[in-house]
Amino acid sequence: MKVEGRNAVLELLKSDKSVDKLLMQKGAEGSAGRIFAMAREKNIRVQFADARALERESETGRHQGVIAFVSEYEYADLSDLCAPKGSPRFVVVCDGVEDVHNLGSIVRVAECAGADGVVIPKNKSAQITGAVVRISEGAANHIKVARVPGVNYAIDELKKAGYWVYGLESDGEDIYACDLTGDIALVVGGENSGIGALTRKKCDKILSLPLYGKVNSLNASVALGAAAYEAVRQRR
Amino acid sequence: MKVEGRNAVLELLKSDKSVDKLLMQKGAEGSAGRIFAMAREKNIRVQFADARALERESETGRHQGVIAFVSEYEYADLSDLCAPKGSPRFVVVCDGVEDVHNLGSIVRVAECAGADGVVIPKNKSAQITGAVVRISEGAANHIKVARVPGVNYAIDELKKAGYWVYGLESDGEDIYACDLTGDIALVVGGENSGIGALTRKKCDKILSLPLYGKVNSLNASVALGAAAYEAVRQRR
Repeated sequence: MKVEGRNAVLELLKSDKSVDKLLMQKGAEGSAGRIFAMAREKNIRVQFADARALERESETGRHQGVIAFVSEYEYADLSDLCAPKGSPRFVVVCDGVEDVHNLGSIVRVAECAGADGVVIPKNKSAQITGAVVRISEGAANHIKVARVPGVNYAIDELKKAGYWVYGLESDGEDIYACDLTGDIALVVGGENSGIGALTRKKCDKILSLPLYGKVNSLNASVALGAAAYEAVRQRR
Repeated sequence: MKVEGRNAVLELLKSDKSVDKLLMQKGAEGSAGRIFAMAREKNIRVQFADARALERESETGRHQGVIAFVSEYEYADLSDLCAPKGSPRFVVVCDGVEDVHNLGSIVRVAECAGADGVVIPKNKSAQITGAVVRISEGAANHIKVARVPGVNYAIDELKKAGYWVYGLESDGEDIYACDLTGDIALVVGGENSGIGALTRKKCDKILSLPLYGKVNSLNASVALGAAAYEAVRQRR
C-alpha cells in the first residue's frame, strides 16, 4: 500500500506501522526535512527520484514529493474492540460508507474525538486504502479499524460486549437527551441510503441532531463530529 | 451560474432564486420527475438535450441529468447580518477557506445548525460558484452569504453590532467552558494556515475542541459542526 503526501507520511512515521521504503523527490529532503530525518532515524530506506517517477508511482496525484510504501493495512480484530477496558469504550460503525473521502473523514474525526476504533464491513463499503489513509491525515494508522463480514453481526457482538448502539439519522430522538457516558457505538450510514433497515432495528436507539435549515441532512463525517463531541462533552 | 445535480437543483427550485432555464437529459423527466414538475409549476423553461450536451455544459462533471442556469449568486450585505433580531444571532466567518469542498461543507453545516449567515472575503477565498452550491446540497440558496472586502473589517462591524467573536483553533480555551448563548460569530480558518495572525487578535477568544488523538486537527467543516452544535445545545 502507498501512503502519499507530507502530513500522511509524517503521521505514518510517528506510528509503529512498518514502512518498507520511502520515495522522495530529489531536493525534497530540505523542505520535507522532518520526514527525511525521521526516516533515517527509523532506518527506513530512502530512495530519491525525479518528479516524473513520483507522478508514475502516485495513486492519488497528490504526493507532495513523498510516497511511503507500507505493507497492506493491518486491520484490527472486532474482539479487540469488544475487550473490557478501564474507561468507557467508544466505537464508530460505518454502514455502507462507500465514498473514500467520507470514510477518511470519519476515521479522522473518530481518532480526534478519542474513539477506540472504527468498524467497516467487507462489502458495499470503502476499504482502508492509501487514499483513505491520506484523507484521514494519517489517523487510520493510529486507530483500530476492524473489518467485519457484516455490520449486523458486528452490532450483535458489540451488544454482547456491553455496548449501547446508537444509529445517527435525521428522524430519531434528541441526541442531547441521551446519556452517552457509557460504552457506546455510533452507527453512521452511507451516502446514498443511510443506515440499512435491519441495522436500524438492531440499534438501541436512533439519535438525531436538530436541523434548523431547509437542507435536511448533514454530511456523515460532520454529523459524526457533532455527535462524537457531544459524547466527549458528557464523558469528561 | 450553473447549478448541477438533482439535490442541488431541487433545493434551488424550493428557494426563491430566479432560474433562467433548466437543462434536462432526455428521459430524465421520469426519474427526476419531481424536478420536472416543480420547474413546470414555476414556469421555468425546460430544455431537453442528450447526455453529450449536458457533459459539455457541466462544470462539475456530476450533473445527474439536470443543470439549472441561474443569475449570478446574490450575495447578502454584511449589514443584513448586523441588523438587530429578536433571538440570538449566529454567523460563521471564513478566513481564507480556499477549497470549494470546504466552503460548500461549511455553508451546509451553517445552514443546518440554523446560522443566520456566512461571511467570506473577496480575496484569498473560494467564492460561491455553482460547484459550491452543489457541494452545499443547495444550502447556499437558503442562507445569507455576505462577501466582504476583508475579514478583519467584517469582525469590527460584527463587534460593533454586538457580536462576540470566537476563533476556532486547536490551541485555545475549552469551548465547553464558554457561554455561546448570545450573539456569536465563529471564525474558521483556511486549509493551509488557519486563522490569520491579525484576525486571531481581533477575536474575543480562541476556542478549541479537545483532541484526544495523535492527529492534531479536525477538518474545518467538522470542527465547525461540533462547535456550532455545541452552540445549538446551549441555546435551546
